Amino acid sequence: MMTMETIGQQAKAASQAVAQLSNEERNQLLQAMATALLSQQEEIIRANDEDLAAASDLSGPMRNRLTVNQLVIQGIAASLRAVATLPDPLAGPYDSWEHSTGFKITKKTVPLGVVAMIYEARPNVTVDAAALAIKSGNAVILRGGKEAIRTNKVLAKVLRNVLSDNGLNRNIIQLIEDTSHESVNQLLGMRKYVDVLIPRGSKAFIDFVVQNATVPVIETGAGNTHIFVDESADQDQAISVIVNAKTSKPAVCNSTEKLLVHEVIAKDFLPKVVQALIEKGVELRGDEQSQTIDTRILAANEKDWDTEYNDLIMAIKVVKDCEQAIDWINEHTTHHSETILSENVQNVTKFMNQVDAAVVYQNVSSRFTDGFEFGFGAEIGISTQKLHARGPMGLAALTTIKYEVFGDGQVRE
Amino acid sequence: MMTMETIGQQAKAASQAVAQLSNEERNQLLQAMATALLSQQEEIIRANDEDLAAASDLSGPMRNRLTVNQLVIQGIAASLRAVATLPDPLAGPYDSWEHSTGFKITKKTVPLGVVAMIYEARPNVTVDAAALAIKSGNAVILRGGKEAIRTNKVLAKVLRNVLSDNGLNRNIIQLIEDTSHESVNQLLGMRKYVDVLIPRGSKAFIDFVVQNATVPVIETGAGNTHIFVDESADQDQAISVIVNAKTSKPAVCNSTEKLLVHEVIAKDFLPKVVQALIEKGVELRGDEQSQTIDTRILAANEKDWDTEYNDLIMAIKVVKDCEQAIDWINEHTTHHSETILSENVQNVTKFMNQVDAAVVYQNVSSRFTDGFEFGFGAEIGISTQKLHARGPMGLAALTTIKYEVFGDGQVRE
Repeated sequence: MMTMETIGQQAKAASQAVAQLSNEERNQLLQAMATALLSQQEEIIRANDEDLAAASDLSGPMRNRLTVNQLVIQGIAASLRAVATLPDPLAGPYDSWEHSTGFKITKKTVPLGVVAMIYEARPNVTVDAAALAIKSGNAVILRGGKEAIRTNKVLAKVLRNVLSDNGLNRNIIQLIEDTSHESVNQLLGMRKYVDVLIPRGSKAFIDFVVQNATVPVIETGAGNTHIFVDESADQDQAISVIVNAKTSKPAVCNSTEKLLVHEVIAKDFLPKVVQALIEKGVELRGDEQSQTIDTRILAANEKDWDTEYNDLIMAIKVVKDCEQAIDWINEHTTHHSETILSENVQNVTKFMNQVDAAVVYQNVSSRFTDGFEFGFGAEIGISTQKLHARGPMGLAALTTIKYEVFGDGQVRE
Repeated sequence: MMTMETIGQQAKAASQAVAQLSNEERNQLLQAMATALLSQQEEIIRANDEDLAAASDLSGPMRNRLTVNQLVIQGIAASLRAVATLPDPLAGPYDSWEHSTGFKITKKTVPLGVVAMIYEARPNVTVDAAALAIKSGNAVILRGGKEAIRTNKVLAKVLRNVLSDNGLNRNIIQLIEDTSHESVNQLLGMRKYVDVLIPRGSKAFIDFVVQNATVPVIETGAGNTHIFVDESADQDQAISVIVNAKTSKPAVCNSTEKLLVHEVIAKDFLPKVVQALIEKGVELRGDEQSQTIDTRILAANEKDWDTEYNDLIMAIKVVKDCEQAIDWINEHTTHHSETILSENVQNVTKFMNQVDAAVVYQNVSSRFTDGFEFGFGAEIGISTQKLHARGPMGLAALTTIKYEVFGDGQVRE
């Protein structure tokens, strides 16, 4: 098996090749990859069958994500073609200005270089990540979950064949075939070769990466998100938003986990929203005050307030006012998406300004935190950190800048 | 002494206060700080005298940097007033757009929150960093070198008094008074409170920070920078640029350390440039080929090629062509500033595209890599990494974005 050092070196070398391609050449590659995946779907599905057979102990939703059938391949191919139609993230216009001595500075948008992704058993990520990397002029190193390794190998082979068929360096896309923890550990230290690492997975895994990586990391995905229902909220609308935010797709990071209710309306509002949530199968846990109001609420413990359930569970707390809600959220937020349901402009402004999250909503379900919903045409992940990229990340998150300076002998006094 | 945990908590709390100030209020604070520093200069200079007396073993240039006299204080005050006149980095216009369901997304520019700086014995950085943090709406944690601690304490006291005199939280500016290594180590792990850490200092120190920090770091300053003299270069111009890039301020990161010369012109060009550099007191070290051409060049060893001298030393290598120069630079660069001296458009384009550095120059001295020279009106450091900020960093590097979403009950299907 190839050493990680070799993979890094090869990626760095390949990054020069992909960076020099025109937007049209990159788009043609993506179109050719879509065609190749469709024409070789039998081999892909065969490998996926083996993965599924080997992973007989996987739970339903995990198994679902691992499955690649004809329909899934059609979706992956369509998504490749969609990326090909997006605007070139490297195109200008660039800022450009002249120094007093006459030289010209241009601030160009350039690829990051080598993008690495670590992800779980979702084979579509293999193709998506490769597509977004190529579209933005980057080489990519992929480390998928071990459950999907057979499928990923075939997918990577198909994509790499398209590269070499077009006279390009196959190492623009590399899949790490070693699915041991050791390959992850090595990747975390490959500062010489990896320009950015985007980990996807559980909060515990992302925390591990952040604690141990020396390569630059963009944290993604952890979403312990809150809704605060203010005194002035439209209560029918609030129930509809809360039910959507909690139950429409509970396993994803932009679904809401916690409900804070203004104490002035708690007695009136809580039983109604609890009823609506229970009808959708949600288990409710709450603080003492909420339990006193509605006995269907179970007791929450300290750990609940910092847990992202990713499940049909919601914790409820009664708060004194908007300020207490803001303080509570800033103490427990994972900086992903936070919501206020309110008609009070002053409170909404305060909440917008003071809550420390990538996306702050008034009267909208947090389920909209998504690159496609935000109009970026693609999504490489949702950043929960503040540097470089924040919130839903499209192609721009895979670029950086470079200053090009052209002169005729200027020296500095 | 205050615990680091307390300092972190206080900074986070104070960051909310400074983020809510208007641009006018922030500017008035900076003006008041300039006035306060001038009116309390005697106390500052007295503390600095004690620092200087205690640091009797410091070398000349270090001693120079540590010294704060009347003239230096006037400079610091002028720089505060200059920051006050810069445009508001948090002002719009912001991008704003509507989702198909009718809610509105605004992409706002907001402060990072808490900025931490670790730096050496230059007391002016204490004030500069505080000023740039406040101007961009951030709280700041300062950890200066131990040699300057007495001066820094007085400077911080003066600035913090201005904050409290204006009814503001003094902890918008905090100085870590513990100058042991332990305080640095703790700061590196304060992910809960510190939004970005900008270390300044030697390459070894910055590497230590990168290896050990879990807080987000912006790497700055290491500059193993090269000049490649192409076959087509204007040789008189080349000598003038090389001498300026090497000798005008050898101790700073944007001075050039390495000289690569195209072999076709090496015999003719090297003796001339060596003569000019020796006249300026530069020690030259080179590869075998360069030594054969000019015997005044001493032998370079392997370590030379990766060393930032920050001194009147330059290493010279003869290269076969532009491609070899690019490969060599990409192997040894610290990604700061790289230069080609050439009249050949094809080679210049190749060099600009393929060299992996924040700033790439044609026929200009690398000494211009500087926030003021680039027209940013300020400089918090020079980023040698690709994420968030690259190259000279002005106020924008201390901001991030936040999506504010305003709706009326939208839910996601």
